[in-house]
Amino acid sequence: MIQKLIEKIQKTKAPICVGLDPMLGFIPDHIRNRSMKELGQTLEGAADAIWHFNKEIVDHTFDLVPSVKPQIAMYEQFGIPGLKVYEQTVRYCQEKGLVVIGDAKRGDIGSTSAAYATAHLGSVKVGDSLCRAFDTDFLTVNPYLGTDGVKPFVDVCRTEDKGIFVLVKTSNPSSGEFQDRLIDGRPLYEHVAEKVVEWGSDCMDGSYSNVGAVVGATYPEMGAVLRRLMPHTYFLVPGYGAQGGTAQDLKACFNEDGLGAVVNSSRGIIAAYRQEKYAKFGPEHFAEASRQAVLDMKADIGSVL
Amino acid sequence: MIQKLIEKIQKTKAPICVGLDPMLGFIPDHIRNRSMKELGQTLEGAADAIWHFNKEIVDHTFDLVPSVKPQIAMYEQFGIPGLKVYEQTVRYCQEKGLVVIGDAKRGDIGSTSAAYATAHLGSVKVGDSLCRAFDTDFLTVNPYLGTDGVKPFVDVCRTEDKGIFVLVKTSNPSSGEFQDRLIDGRPLYEHVAEKVVEWGSDCMDGSYSNVGAVVGATYPEMGAVLRRLMPHTYFLVPGYGAQGGTAQDLKACFNEDGLGAVVNSSRGIIAAYRQEKYAKFGPEHFAEASRQAVLDMKADIGSVL
Repeated sequence: MIQKLIEKIQKTKAPICVGLDPMLGFIPDHIRNRSMKELGQTLEGAADAIWHFNKEIVDHTFDLVPSVKPQIAMYEQFGIPGLKVYEQTVRYCQEKGLVVIGDAKRGDIGSTSAAYATAHLGSVKVGDSLCRAFDTDFLTVNPYLGTDGVKPFVDVCRTEDKGIFVLVKTSNPSSGEFQDRLIDGRPLYEHVAEKVVEWGSDCMDGSYSNVGAVVGATYPEMGAVLRRLMPHTYFLVPGYGAQGGTAQDLKACFNEDGLGAVVNSSRGIIAAYRQEKYAKFGPEHFAEASRQAVLDMKADIGSVL
Repeated sequence: MIQKLIEKIQKTKAPICVGLDPMLGFIPDHIRNRSMKELGQTLEGAADAIWHFNKEIVDHTFDLVPSVKPQIAMYEQFGIPGLKVYEQTVRYCQEKGLVVIGDAKRGDIGSTSAAYATAHLGSVKVGDSLCRAFDTDFLTVNPYLGTDGVKPFVDVCRTEDKGIFVLVKTSNPSSGEFQDRLIDGRPLYEHVAEKVVEWGSDCMDGSYSNVGAVVGATYPEMGAVLRRLMPHTYFLVPGYGAQGGTAQDLKACFNEDGLGAVVNSSRGIIAAYRQEKYAKFGPEHFAEASRQAVLDMKADIGSVL
């Protein structure tokens, strides 16, 4: 699966992932009002607005980027109707040829992780049928429970040609609280990185592994160290844009071949029309603002590679 | 919310949580076949079987126990139909007066954790309406992202009188891989425990905090240390029974007042009829076997308290 992502990155010349993390407040009034008029001020109304918002952004950006990353929490907060739209968004993006990274950060004891792996990457046997639930291409995974909590995801990656990105160093301000603490003289995230390399070693797909790592753009020095520690691991890099990471900060996450990282931007793209820079598009043309934001991000990242 | 759980524990004299983690293989043929005959070998058919299985177990145990803990992964693997049954199970258990602990182990950067907190414990504003999604009483939370990833859950606990259990030391075999590593001479899980105490300090509900901890029964020595480090923190204790934890192992997780822990058993109760000990009930009377398993667990734990 990582090869598919790499090929799409090379074709689009954009190591970019559009974060489909729709907050209701991001959605222009004309869409929100239409959905709520039809379905009420309900979870169904909110979910419908999110669907129309997502669809328009995907329609205006799918030819420019290799991948999207829907953050499932933003859908889960709208309950079943929200999760239906998560599923609908995943399907629609795949139909448009996009690689879909489900950002769910799941992780549990072995048998439970196996169920999550089934839910998001694999298939479940019901009688004689194999049924698929959310069926994204990649999933983000939390490593706190150790090898037996991650292995079920790795196993599904191997059998189904899917991929995961394991949290190594996250982009948020408190990420250092535990992740940076020194163990035998080295921060916890380096120990996690070593395990990620180990887990990924029998899951190679070309020169990179289907087991990738989440490495925040907001900590560039650490990105550089991790890049050296994990030469065959693809990085999913959150934190660019709204969270403060710049193109210069990202450089360290790439290998010399110009590969090795896919950079996510959520708010910076999907809510671009709310920035002064893109205000001229107006709420009616929010998706055109998103398209312009993708083009600008592509140029920005291209300038340092 | 923790007071509500404590009152129910005192009333039932059972510091017990029934883990509603239905694998398809646990469900007796007569239920599975009926659901699949009606709805096919589909996600809908599987979810329907799970619902009938759960309902019968709840009907046969709700008067004996204070709480249940549905593991959302087991529902998520059956997609939207599975998650509908998760929601239906939560509602049904609450109607029966049970405290419901959603075992979802969510955790992310701040804004995303806020969305998860909304999804599982809080409410979301849609226009002028406040809508609720899964609305469990407690939720399990992963601490790997640090304070800003946990705080949104704590905030909702305070405003909505709900609770969380933060993973400190998990019950699985690999849990020590990261959790036991020494930082300044003390294992990571102790550092997490200190943070849990800090997060919970302004979220007290009587003599315990609404911010609890997950502490696996499979590591009793560590349970004893954590009990001393976190005197006002309630423990959710997985690992009893099928995972290998015994009643003697649990003792250390309780305070001298006989409170401080609620012990989960999943397979040991819901799939009791498959054990030789309860085989006499047969698959048709699986829920009666579950009832007997609860009574036996209650006696077993009572013997060491």
